[in-house]
Formats: sequence, C-alpha cells, structure tokens
Amino acid sequence: MNPPPVNLAQGVCHWDPPPAALRQMESGLREPANHKYGPALGLPALREALVAKLEEENGLDMTGQEVMVTSGGNQAFAMVALALLDPGDRVLLARPFYCAHQCAVQLAGGTLVECDWDTSTLLPDMEQLRREVQRGVKMVVITTPGNPSGAVCPRETLEEIARLCGENNAWLVVDEAYEHFLHDGERHFSPCGNSLGCPDNVIHLFTMSKSFGLAGWRVGYAVYPSWASKEMVKVQDTLPTHACTGSQKIALAALEGGVDWVKSKVSSLSRCRSAMWAAVKDMGGVMGKGSFYFLVPVPVEEDRAVDVLARRWGVLTTPGRAFGAPGHIRVSYGSLPEEQCLPAIRSLAEGLRELSNETSETQAERG
Amino acid sequence: MNPPPVNLAQGVCHWDPPPAALRQMESGLREPANHKYGPALGLPALREALVAKLEEENGLDMTGQEVMVTSGGNQAFAMVALALLDPGDRVLLARPFYCAHQCAVQLAGGTLVECDWDTSTLLPDMEQLRREVQRGVKMVVITTPGNPSGAVCPRETLEEIARLCGENNAWLVVDEAYEHFLHDGERHFSPCGNSLGCPDNVIHLFTMSKSFGLAGWRVGYAVYPSWASKEMVKVQDTLPTHACTGSQKIALAALEGGVDWVKSKVSSLSRCRSAMWAAVKDMGGVMGKGSFYFLVPVPVEEDRAVDVLARRWGVLTTPGRAFGAPGHIRVSYGSLPEEQCLPAIRSLAEGLRELSNETSETQAERG
Repeated sequence: MNPPPVNLAQGVCHWDPPPAALRQMESGLREPANHKYGPALGLPALREALVAKLEEENGLDMTGQEVMVTSGGNQAFAMVALALLDPGDRVLLARPFYCAHQCAVQLAGGTLVECDWDTSTLLPDMEQLRREVQRGVKMVVITTPGNPSGAVCPRETLEEIARLCGENNAWLVVDEAYEHFLHDGERHFSPCGNSLGCPDNVIHLFTMSKSFGLAGWRVGYAVYPSWASKEMVKVQDTLPTHACTGSQKIALAALEGGVDWVKSKVSSLSRCRSAMWAAVKDMGGVMGKGSFYFLVPVPVEEDRAVDVLARRWGVLTTPGRAFGAPGHIRVSYGSLPEEQCLPAIRSLAEGLRELSNETSETQAERG
Repeated sequence: MNPPPVNLAQGVCHWDPPPAALRQMESGLREPANHKYGPALGLPALREALVAKLEEENGLDMTGQEVMVTSGGNQAFAMVALALLDPGDRVLLARPFYCAHQCAVQLAGGTLVECDWDTSTLLPDMEQLRREVQRGVKMVVITTPGNPSGAVCPRETLEEIARLCGENNAWLVVDEAYEHFLHDGERHFSPCGNSLGCPDNVIHLFTMSKSFGLAGWRVGYAVYPSWASKEMVKVQDTLPTHACTGSQKIALAALEGGVDWVKSKVSSLSRCRSAMWAAVKDMGGVMGKGSFYFLVPVPVEEDRAVDVLARRWGVLTTPGRAFGAPGHIRVSYGSLPEEQCLPAIRSLAEGLRELSNETSETQAERG
C-alpha cells in the first residue's frame, strides 16, 4: 500500500499558535466566567484589542463601526449574508472566488452573479464588474489577498470598487483572511483605510485561523457600520450564539503577542513559495504576491488531474471548479513545514510534467 | 443607586462544568491537532461517545443515524433549518416556543405556523397540531422538556406527533436541550427511543451547555438520518466549519465523567423550584416537571411587568412575547445558586403581589 498522500490542498498554515496563546490555553481557561454565556458581539476586552489593531494596522477609522467576534471567517460571512440579503438579491463574486462565499450566498437565498478575471492578474475584470454593479447588485465580495488566486488587489482597484458600490447602493464585503500573507514587498490595503470620502457600505472580514495558527479554535471577526448591528446580533444569536469564550481569550493573548511573530512565520514560507512557483510556472499561471496558494491551469479535466496527482504522485490538491475556476487546480505551499513541503512539491512537479506530456502525446497522436 | 438587578431571566445553569472537564481545560488543550481544522461532523472520539450515550441513555437505535457536533444548540437548529427548509416551507412551532427556533425558521425563509397550547398542560393543542400537519407542513418543532414552559411532553404524545409527521411527510425536530432537567420523578423520552415502527424523519437536538455547565464553550449535537448528512455537512462547513476542537475535548471529558454528576446538580435545584412555584402559583400558571422555568401569567402587559420587576424589585425576568406567549413572563430558578436565588424569589413574589394588587385596585376603581 502506498503511504497516504501529502496535503498540498488545505487552506491552513502549518504552524502552531504563538507562545502567548499556548500559555493562555494552559492557565487561563478555568475562570467561571468562561463557562457561562458571553455577549453575542464577543468579549469586550477582545473587541477593544481588535479596534486598536484595526485602527493601527489596517488604518480603518472605527468611528461608527462595530466589530463582532465570530466562530471563524466562514461564519462571519454567513452571518453577513443571512443578515443583509433578501431572497433573490444579486451578489457578485469575482472568480476565482472562495467556495464558502458561494455556499453562504445560496443559503441566504441570494442569486450568484459571477465576474470573470483578468487572466494576466487573476483580479476581477473591471469592465464586467462595473457593468454588473451598475445593472444592480446588492453585494460585491472580494477576497484579497486571494483564495485561491494568491493575487493582491491593489489599493486603487479596491477604492474604485468601494466607490462604485457606494454609488450604486451595494455592499462591498472584503474578506481579508490572508491580510498578513504578503510576499516580495507587497502591502495589504483595507479599503477605506486611511482614505476619505468612502461610503458607509464596506464590511471587512478577518480570521485568527491562518495568521495565528488558531484554525481549530474558531475565531474570526467582522467589521460593519454600527447601524447594521441589530440585524447582525440577531443572526449571530441564532447561529453560534457567540464565539467560544475560551477561544476568544486565546485569540486576545495571540493578538497581544503582536504581529511581528506572524510576519516572521510568513517570511519563513519563502523557500516553499519559490519551489512551488518553479514547479507550476510552466503550466501558465500567475505568481500572485499574497496568501499561500497558486491557481494552476491543468491540461486535463481538473478532477482527473487531482486524481492522478493523488494516486500516482501522492499529493493532494484542490479542483478549481469549487472556486469557479474549472481547468485549474489550487495548490497550497503553507500547509506543511518546509521539510515535508519541498519533497511534496517535487512530486507535484513530476506529476504535472507527466500530465502535460500525456496531453501533448495524445494531441500528437490525434494530430 | 440601586444594586444591579438579580438575574432570574437567563437560560443557563449556575454550576461550573464537572471536574473531568475542568481538568481537561488545564492539561489537554495544547496538542498541535487542536489548533488545526477538524472534521465538520466533529471529533471521531466525541461522536463515538455520543453514539454510546444516545443508545444507552436515550434508547435511540443509531443504525442509519448520524451525529454531528455543533457550536451549541442554536447552531444545531439553524443548521437543520437551513439544510432542510426551502423558502416558503411551513414550519409548525408549538407555542410557547423557544425564540431562537423562530429566528432560524425566518433565516431559512420558512413560514411560521403557530400551534396553541392546552392551557391545563402547556403542551400543544393536539387537535390543532393534527389539523395543521394534515394541511401540510415541512417540519414540526417540539422542545421537551419545555423552554419556556417547563412542561414535559409525554411519550404517547411524542409518538403520536412522530407518527403524524411520518404519515404526512414532515420532519419532526425535537429539541432535547433540557433532557436531564426532570423533577418529581418525571422521565425524559426521546421519540423513537426503544420503540418500533417510527419513520426515518425525526431529528434530535442536544446541548452540553445546560446539563454540563459548558454554555461558554459552545458544544451541542444533532442526530439525523445519515442520508441527510451531505446537506448538513455542507451547511456546517459554511457556518462555523466545525465546533471548536478544544471545546469538543472538554465535552468528551465531561461526558466520560458520567450523567450522575448532572443528576445530582439537577436535584439540588429542588428547593429553588419549590420556592419559585410558591412565589408564582397564585398567578395561575402550570407547574411543569421539566427544565428550570415557569411561564407565569401576569396581570399587566408583560413588558411593563418585566420593567416593574427589574426597577422596583431588582429581579430580571423575560417577557413572554419572545416565546409566542404574550401576557406571560418566563422565570428561571436554575441560573443562580440557592443563596442568591431564594432571596431573589422572595423579591419576585412581592413584586408579583404588588402587580396583582395594583390591577385589582384599578379594576375596582373602574368597576
């Protein structure tokens, strides 16, 4: 029997949480208050720390804005969709999109409007986006840095989308789960951060799962205009009631430890990132400067590519159809420590070469 | 300034989690696997322990049934509603109903069908229930022991409702959050437990929040036919992704500690229960044998009653309208330890007496 395939598929970082969070797990969870229900919005101390982080790090003006702690990033988006969408509302997702956004829009009864990507950047085709927003959508969803694209949406583009949404009475939801995952000197920009004149229609989503290695603890957060809070709280109360209190304490400890720890972890990905790019670049993708994914075109139907790579080459990857990107697979270079990741990338490279050769041979035979 | 009002409103028990759960919090949460994503269905070890509990304690035949761990009981019901309801589906809630059920039905786009209660038992008016189910509903929701009623639905009634739902192609969802909260020798019955011929359309919801004092940790579970699992998992993945892994480990430790601990805690409520009943019985309610609530008729508009009781008598109670029970308030005798609960009950009694006297005087003046 072959060894189980190595995971280049999952959207999770390989590292453990920072030391302060681990200490909190050991000594800070037995307080009686942790066992009782907490506020739907989250623990006041964590929310204060988040406001400070959002102002300092993201440059957001938090006046008139509310931050709610959620049970992870998916639940944050589901809450927003369920609170703000009415059945039949059109929601624009820019392909390649994050699959859980699509599911949540469907749960909320929204109608999906897909927007193509610019193949040279993997960013939204702005002409199409503009046209669709002007035709009327209730919400535009952008994930930056991108999952599965790895692309970072530039400040000007985000500002243009925010303005466009404002003018057309649409929400802009920006999923910033990968805000810290930046490479080659790239910087993250939270729309409306440090800028003026932006309308009050932008929602920001974040998570502690990736940067701080806290995926299993389920803590994310959403930032939205305070006037939307009543609806958000109602939905939150109906879903998880509130995020696990122990998890929130751990998240607070992690935040207090500071973002430099995260930055050093992210820069430790650089060798895997270079090796992964070397392995996939001949397939014709785009080397985005964010997150820890590449979206790789494959020369065969993507389910077959995923299957061959898993069975014959022992590496798990994700079929692109889930992201609105048929003909592609998503590969992750963040989910394994270097000593496991580099050999897996070598297998992936060989597997992709084989798939390409097969295809050229078949084409030659047919030709 | 008056001291802050004492809480006879909240649906939470006053006790801390069992010793085994507290030990787990101290020493069992730092394993690396706890920090990564876990399975949407929940940890295999916890699910196995739950299957054993459901078979032994609830008498359920788990063949062909699936158990999923959720982020608490509300999220379990929201998942079920979002997975199984289509917009416009009629959902019968028996008044007095648990308010979060109503919210989740609305989120899922369902249409609420209310069923009145039998005033002598606080149980559903079976004639009306039968009529509505036969007219066509997609789902019937029963909470037993009742929140806010405190009433325990007898085995025959539950079996009749299950059969009726089966014959009319409707789901029966039974919220058993208060399964361990039984008084005066009452026993809990999970529909289809130890019985034959029941159709495959019953869903059971449970929580670790009440019995095991783990509200802040957000762990519940849902039992449903395995063939519905694909839809359930999709929704779970879109909401919290999975319940917090650390919380699941704590829940497992609590379960392994056994149910006798819970039973001793529940029987420790008996003095508060008697005192509470003595305080409210003249208002004309029904002394249910389950949970830790009484639903109390009040002689004035219930928001005013709640307001007077809080401001003048220092006790918080819950207005009945939230439960489809206008003209009532819900009082809890489980949320405070005896030494705080008994004095609060005395204040409540005086407050209720004052409200009654006021009303009689007003009526006398008018009359």
